[in-house]
Amino acid sequence: MSLLVVGSIGLDTVKTPVEERSDLLGGSASYAALGASFFTPVNLVGIVGDDFPQSEFQAWESRGIDTRGVQRVHGNTFRWSGEYAWDLNTRETRSVALNVFETFSPTLPEEYRATPFVLLANIAPNLQAHVLDQMNEPRFVLADTMDLWIKTTRSDLDRLLKRVDLLILNDSEAREITQETSLIRAGRKIQQSGPRFVAIKKGEHGALLFGQDEFFSCGAYPLEDIHDPTGAGDTFAGGLGGFVSAHAQGEVTFDLLRRAMIYGSVLASFCVEAFSLERLRHLRSDEISERYKMFKAMSQFESISR
Amino acid sequence: MSLLVVGSIGLDTVKTPVEERSDLLGGSASYAALGASFFTPVNLVGIVGDDFPQSEFQAWESRGIDTRGVQRVHGNTFRWSGEYAWDLNTRETRSVALNVFETFSPTLPEEYRATPFVLLANIAPNLQAHVLDQMNEPRFVLADTMDLWIKTTRSDLDRLLKRVDLLILNDSEAREITQETSLIRAGRKIQQSGPRFVAIKKGEHGALLFGQDEFFSCGAYPLEDIHDPTGAGDTFAGGLGGFVSAHAQGEVTFDLLRRAMIYGSVLASFCVEAFSLERLRHLRSDEISERYKMFKAMSQFESISR
Repeated sequence: MSLLVVGSIGLDTVKTPVEERSDLLGGSASYAALGASFFTPVNLVGIVGDDFPQSEFQAWESRGIDTRGVQRVHGNTFRWSGEYAWDLNTRETRSVALNVFETFSPTLPEEYRATPFVLLANIAPNLQAHVLDQMNEPRFVLADTMDLWIKTTRSDLDRLLKRVDLLILNDSEAREITQETSLIRAGRKIQQSGPRFVAIKKGEHGALLFGQDEFFSCGAYPLEDIHDPTGAGDTFAGGLGGFVSAHAQGEVTFDLLRRAMIYGSVLASFCVEAFSLERLRHLRSDEISERYKMFKAMSQFESISR
Repeated sequence: MSLLVVGSIGLDTVKTPVEERSDLLGGSASYAALGASFFTPVNLVGIVGDDFPQSEFQAWESRGIDTRGVQRVHGNTFRWSGEYAWDLNTRETRSVALNVFETFSPTLPEEYRATPFVLLANIAPNLQAHVLDQMNEPRFVLADTMDLWIKTTRSDLDRLLKRVDLLILNDSEAREITQETSLIRAGRKIQQSGPRFVAIKKGEHGALLFGQDEFFSCGAYPLEDIHDPTGAGDTFAGGLGGFVSAHAQGEVTFDLLRRAMIYGSVLASFCVEAFSLERLRHLRSDEISERYKMFKAMSQFESISR
């Protein structure tokens, strides 16, 4: 079934210790939608300026991504520029220009309102809530967030959490939002504030999933070379949400989310192999299945079945 | 089959954000030997002073740990004092007194020399090598090390690595010894310097195991409350070595090491639940099996079998 994805669409400039590239397609919704598109049809919601390349719309549509919810308005597209430290584990934002994003207030096309699954990719929580307000009782709502919203719009975020089934955030954000040092305590505490499920992303160390009385821990797919970590978390959320939308039968179960987490991790591992969305643009389904099998084999405690 | 364990035996003073305790049994060999004793008979090698409590010898012997290789000499036992930061992830050494350790040159009892498995717990690499020199071709040699030896006695360590089957070290040490930021590259590079197998410990994030063409990644057993992280790495090494010694039939295989890593992690997870060796002293085998099952269930990608 379809997944609605809302988030930022931008043009990025990224500097790694090895290379600098500019005018790259970026933004949380760009990564999440493409990640999800490997599993399910996507209804994309976002905003771009008149400097945004028309070819991206064609690329989206060729991947089963509906772009009727992407507004093209007068002005410049959202721009972000960041620089990674030598180990690629930390980054500094060099500049942000909201541009057309400043006045963005998403209005969903009528055809989008009954989309059964919703991924609120990382944008301000009041915009995420505004999208939910326009939906006809979605079956399952996933939301991603970031430290900026925890620091600056905490009450909006707290209200949103009560409407979310699965919250996705990274380890430092989980610690910050709960003021707990233990990630296990942090995950449990976030569940008490609303979401039935919580996924904590730990970058190169994998991810944790918390259910009602259940818990799942997985490593990250091991990579020797990482070219650009930008968008890995958004791609993870997209892959996860796409897999759930494609495979949920009735209630979304913990076992389904567990597998969805792995597919999210696999998608994210491809994402970082090249700048921007370049690797994902050329990714094939059989490469995803093959990596899933490898990942499973290297995570099994006992006998290996491939 | 038996496992020979050599390393430090000390009396520790440990300060956590919550509590300070002194004159605790500590040292790499104390943790490693007790961890291993849940799986296999242990031949312990070390040195203590005349201030060392005789009751510890009885405690060791009651757990199947042979203490004929523990020298008791005139002088004070090795002492270490450390303080943990608020999140228990980093610690500062407040003081170290080598005492009787300063002149330690282990001489193995005749009965120890044919022990088939050897765990060189963390001590200076020249002492680790000196123990190996006295052994009759052991079947499998595990060694642990630390940043101090990488910095101060690198050439001793490099020579030792050529005689080791499995090197155990933590993530920052793996990066330091190889000057690689990627742990995957680091593990592979260490293999080229000698050890067929490398285990990289990542604390709360689990551990990685590198074989010839194989790789295994596991998380850490999730704990809400950690009381004292001291000795977790030594206990991991001991549990791993003990399990391998108990279960190796012919060649030590990657699949055996994979399970041994999990048992090492399980032992380490019990270790940190109380100060010093208090939790391990009262640990039962059925608690270990139960936690192994739970850990397996929460790490499986697909169907859960308990």
